[in-house]
Amino acid sequence: MHVLILYCHPEPHSFNAALKDVAIEVLENEGHTVEVADLYAENFDPVERPGHFTTRADAEVFSALTEQRHHFESNTLPGKIQHEIDRLWRADLVILQFPLWWHAQPAMLKGWFDRVFVYGGLYSGSRRFDRGPLRGRRALCSVTTGAPAATFSRFGRSADITTLMWPIHCSLYYVGFEVLAPQLTYGVQGGGLSYQAEASFRCQLEADKTRWARRLTQLETEAPLPFSGWADWDEDGVLRETHPLRWRP
Amino acid sequence: MHVLILYCHPEPHSFNAALKDVAIEVLENEGHTVEVADLYAENFDPVERPGHFTTRADAEVFSALTEQRHHFESNTLPGKIQHEIDRLWRADLVILQFPLWWHAQPAMLKGWFDRVFVYGGLYSGSRRFDRGPLRGRRALCSVTTGAPAATFSRFGRSADITTLMWPIHCSLYYVGFEVLAPQLTYGVQGGGLSYQAEASFRCQLEADKTRWARRLTQLETEAPLPFSGWADWDEDGVLRETHPLRWRP
Repeated sequence: MHVLILYCHPEPHSFNAALKDVAIEVLENEGHTVEVADLYAENFDPVERPGHFTTRADAEVFSALTEQRHHFESNTLPGKIQHEIDRLWRADLVILQFPLWWHAQPAMLKGWFDRVFVYGGLYSGSRRFDRGPLRGRRALCSVTTGAPAATFSRFGRSADITTLMWPIHCSLYYVGFEVLAPQLTYGVQGGGLSYQAEASFRCQLEADKTRWARRLTQLETEAPLPFSGWADWDEDGVLRETHPLRWRP
Repeated sequence: MHVLILYCHPEPHSFNAALKDVAIEVLENEGHTVEVADLYAENFDPVERPGHFTTRADAEVFSALTEQRHHFESNTLPGKIQHEIDRLWRADLVILQFPLWWHAQPAMLKGWFDRVFVYGGLYSGSRRFDRGPLRGRRALCSVTTGAPAATFSRFGRSADITTLMWPIHCSLYYVGFEVLAPQLTYGVQGGGLSYQAEASFRCQLEADKTRWARRLTQLETEAPLPFSGWADWDEDGVLRETHPLRWRP
């Protein structure tokens, strides 16, 4: 496989960086090629705005979708965005490595979706979901949380982690990815490993790294999460009345 | 009331801008005072990073939480962040006006949470949720979507809108806000009103504006959404076994 690691953390000594480094090491040992998109190091600008488009399809009223489609079709997207898209085309598997900040990906990574998943290019009309341009590729979110696991359980006050992952997973599905189960590392306090002074905590983090390393050796054959597709939906994009998921308790 | 409208859209001719203008007009007519935080016009930088902190609590390893707490406590937060916090302290009600981009708020607004909800200031230890510093204040998300309403229904392919609003609502709860039901305007295609050429579509948008205007006249007395609090949770932040929500079908 050719693997793209989309890495989003401001601190090279963070536990997120350590998980990214484990992934590089294990995947290369397994014979895969690895490319890292280090959004902070590359100073990615996550804000979609008129200034990114030097010529404009509509010079008066800015619509991100209109400009994205126009510039994709005329091959005049901002260089950094084209670069990110090229990386996606090369990848068989994309690993998104990030901390959960305010119940979602950091703004840096949120804007990667806003700017890189361009209308007209990575989706349009019925070229979405299992007919999306990136179909056949897989994505996996490796996520650290500050809060402990219990708060992300079904009756935890943060709600089930499945609920928090959904907006990100749905966006990946939208352009055609198959999605693997997220790699979840709970209770990572502070940005840097140096803050984790307690021996028992360091021990836990080592165990988390080992758990990740073990999974990485098996990724090539891991089955994606089941998800519905066009065949399951009616013309309004709703699960058909006869779909079994409608009748699950 | 003093109302803060946190407005996040790059285009002054957008429907989001129109909804923001309706809110200003109606609320002022009702005798309230209104302040607008226009994140795009103010060129808010949504990326939390080391460069924002000229002096550092820890010069070697960057932890956003460590720096936020230190700079809040020493009254040396970046000027723009202190400005945003001051606005929050003044507000009885915060209206967040934004489009749903990739199943969440735009990166510009996501980063407003990452940078403005500072650790040590807007939350810390048990000063969270119904013991959070902003308790007694209310927040309301007014959200536009590109996709139609059906895809955001319980069995729609985007999942129920409640699921998509949760990460944002939970972040508002976290610092102490009470949250009003979101104002949802579905099927707003394109960034600008000029794209909505069809008469029937313009007619629908006018109806959406009227619906928003009517609700705004009643906001002062509207009850917030019910939510749990510290009294409902066990020591792990999980709903107690005896909580009625656990036994809802």
